[in-house]
Amino acid sequence: MESGVMSVNNNNYESKATSTITIKGILSLLMENIDENGSKRVISLGMGDPTLTTLFHTPKVVEDAVAHTLQSHKFNGYAPTAGLLQARIAIAEYLSRDLPYQLSSDDVFITCGCTQAIDVSVTLLARPGANILLPRPGFPIYELSAAFRGVEVRHYDLLPEKGWEVDLDAVEALADQNTVALVVINPGNPCGNVYSYHHLEKIAETAKRVGTVVISDEVYGHLAFGGKPFVPMGVFGSVVPVLTLGSLSKRWIVPGWRLGWFVTNDPSGTFRNPKVVERIKKYFNLLGGPATFIQAAVPQIIAHTEEVFFKKTIDNLRHTADICCREIEDIPCIFCPYKPEGSMAMMVKLNLSLLKDISNDIDFCFKLAKEESVIILPGTAVGLNDWLRITFAADPSALGEGMKRVKSFYQRHARKL
Amino acid sequence: MESGVMSVNNNNYESKATSTITIKGILSLLMENIDENGSKRVISLGMGDPTLTTLFHTPKVVEDAVAHTLQSHKFNGYAPTAGLLQARIAIAEYLSRDLPYQLSSDDVFITCGCTQAIDVSVTLLARPGANILLPRPGFPIYELSAAFRGVEVRHYDLLPEKGWEVDLDAVEALADQNTVALVVINPGNPCGNVYSYHHLEKIAETAKRVGTVVISDEVYGHLAFGGKPFVPMGVFGSVVPVLTLGSLSKRWIVPGWRLGWFVTNDPSGTFRNPKVVERIKKYFNLLGGPATFIQAAVPQIIAHTEEVFFKKTIDNLRHTADICCREIEDIPCIFCPYKPEGSMAMMVKLNLSLLKDISNDIDFCFKLAKEESVIILPGTAVGLNDWLRITFAADPSALGEGMKRVKSFYQRHARKL
Repeated sequence: MESGVMSVNNNNYESKATSTITIKGILSLLMENIDENGSKRVISLGMGDPTLTTLFHTPKVVEDAVAHTLQSHKFNGYAPTAGLLQARIAIAEYLSRDLPYQLSSDDVFITCGCTQAIDVSVTLLARPGANILLPRPGFPIYELSAAFRGVEVRHYDLLPEKGWEVDLDAVEALADQNTVALVVINPGNPCGNVYSYHHLEKIAETAKRVGTVVISDEVYGHLAFGGKPFVPMGVFGSVVPVLTLGSLSKRWIVPGWRLGWFVTNDPSGTFRNPKVVERIKKYFNLLGGPATFIQAAVPQIIAHTEEVFFKKTIDNLRHTADICCREIEDIPCIFCPYKPEGSMAMMVKLNLSLLKDISNDIDFCFKLAKEESVIILPGTAVGLNDWLRITFAADPSALGEGMKRVKSFYQRHARKL
Repeated sequence: MESGVMSVNNNNYESKATSTITIKGILSLLMENIDENGSKRVISLGMGDPTLTTLFHTPKVVEDAVAHTLQSHKFNGYAPTAGLLQARIAIAEYLSRDLPYQLSSDDVFITCGCTQAIDVSVTLLARPGANILLPRPGFPIYELSAAFRGVEVRHYDLLPEKGWEVDLDAVEALADQNTVALVVINPGNPCGNVYSYHHLEKIAETAKRVGTVVISDEVYGHLAFGGKPFVPMGVFGSVVPVLTLGSLSKRWIVPGWRLGWFVTNDPSGTFRNPKVVERIKKYFNLLGGPATFIQAAVPQIIAHTEEVFFKKTIDNLRHTADICCREIEDIPCIFCPYKPEGSMAMMVKLNLSLLKDISNDIDFCFKLAKEESVIILPGTAVGLNDWLRITFAADPSALGEGMKRVKSFYQRHARKL
């Protein structure tokens, strides 16, 4: 037996893949660090899974739609690998509501959640020498996918002082003829940003100028609770081809259903080249796809979810983000440079100079888990050392209690001035 | 906009990917060729989807298990990317029933059907210069995956005169130090073979001798209705490391549920190297995975499906395979070298010298579709020119009628002697 078989590959990208930090990986390590004999209940502000709270729950009509297609016995068989036609049509119509043009079902490919849509985009754009521009802070699945698919990562900064806008000068400086995509996450994970129409337009123009497509990760699409409305990047699809990634996961509070999409927003037709379409379709033959009966329920899910449910989610997120920001103001060692306006997470900066025995964000989070049974993601996991990512999609009482424990933790570790 | 972005990649493997024939692709072309104004109902003996017949249906207890986990509201959130623990445990126990050792849940990774398990195996084994040994005839998703992942394909023949056994001499001749896997499909698609314990042992010994792992595709596991029982390749996991691929799809008649598995059968521990495990886990972070509530139902599905259901499926398949073989005996231009003993498909050889105006298997199938509204897959799609793959997982009446139409077709096209 060759010992090299399936062992760590010796190319650069592979070693990056195995060394890439994953959010789930670091959260498990933090969980292991919790004092099992402690009396405090565990409060997790680490993971973006709204189903773990009592605050967020998908409407009954949505669950019933899936129960109905399951029990109809009609959808136990294979779906076409690009997705069930009725689901592709429904998603095309749903997304077109916010666009100045109409998507067709041919633009929509169904994926196992947004995670798979990310990997599909990176894989389809990969070629020898390719590089991709990713936001810092960002979502590490992009880095992991780039590592496995042999694509070089170049990071541009998000600017906290400008509401976490894209540093467009950095994008221009980083891009070259081998740049295959500029990735934008809006509403933003981990920053809670919501980009204005004007900023999105400038992103599109920049991407056009440097000659690359935009991958717009809109998994938190419509979850905007601040002053700015959510605008999909596809609005600028005629400026630059946009690949829009999304899913039912966050807006419908069903991340475990794994129903996502990869959509070509491309009214000028760059992706309609028959060879490109053929290649995308061929690749989808390898993917497996979500369960047929879940796909079959998508038209009913989109048609019958009431606005009041969406509004309640937005109101809840505004409320919990407010709690979070208010409590943070009361904790000297953490600072929020920009109040979140969307998604379910925010970034806060650690001021280590106010702490006597904490060496960095990872040390902070591990000690916090051990002493206070509170889980917060170290910023290092999303690309920013000595920051923290706090998920505010949590029950208000847990969030309040969690932040109070962070405050106690601070007081215990505060440097005496 | 770079016209090259996302267009056909110019490396050799990519061009293979886009030129690879897919079963679904060729079946759609055949369907388009059917005379829409014809009076005959369409009979499809082309696709291995048993849910399209009235003969096969998953038990109510299986559907109820999924309805229950869906409606429990407990499984709308994310599962761990390697799979929900309770599903991994249940699958490990299920597979261990037929093994001389016990699998652990750590050996089991949950995939979106067996299709994704295939692509996962090929991707994880890929490295520069790697080659993989695939059966001919075979299942074209392997070729497609190898093309996208940059792995060279080397075909070994299955031997019709020996019950479609693996040509072990060819395997020895084809393998070299860059061979990363020998793929075996048992019970066999497209041939309907079921390998004996003795033959599987010889395959394992050959793989060990040439220094490669075995990928054992057991998506049709337990669907053996002839004289030989189904033996999993994992029985020989201590001879050579085996990656076992499977799913609920065929045995439970739910291909659309996309619940598959990638399992390391490796009692000697080659795949337990921490770096290898870490790499597999990292890769699973990109995949999406099946719906959490379907995974959550797996223990109930496995525990509560009655033997009588499995027996009925086997009896039905034996019956429909018999009908197929009997009718074929009556059609001079096609010949079945080996009566199927398992799976849902068989290969028959075309004798073109008995036909006056048919140039090859593809021509045969397109004319048959047009004239008789019968869909049969040309052997070229699975690697054997001038053969046909017939799916016998069909209603007996449709199967009988379909074969009678093939006979009429023959009579109309027979060469006058």
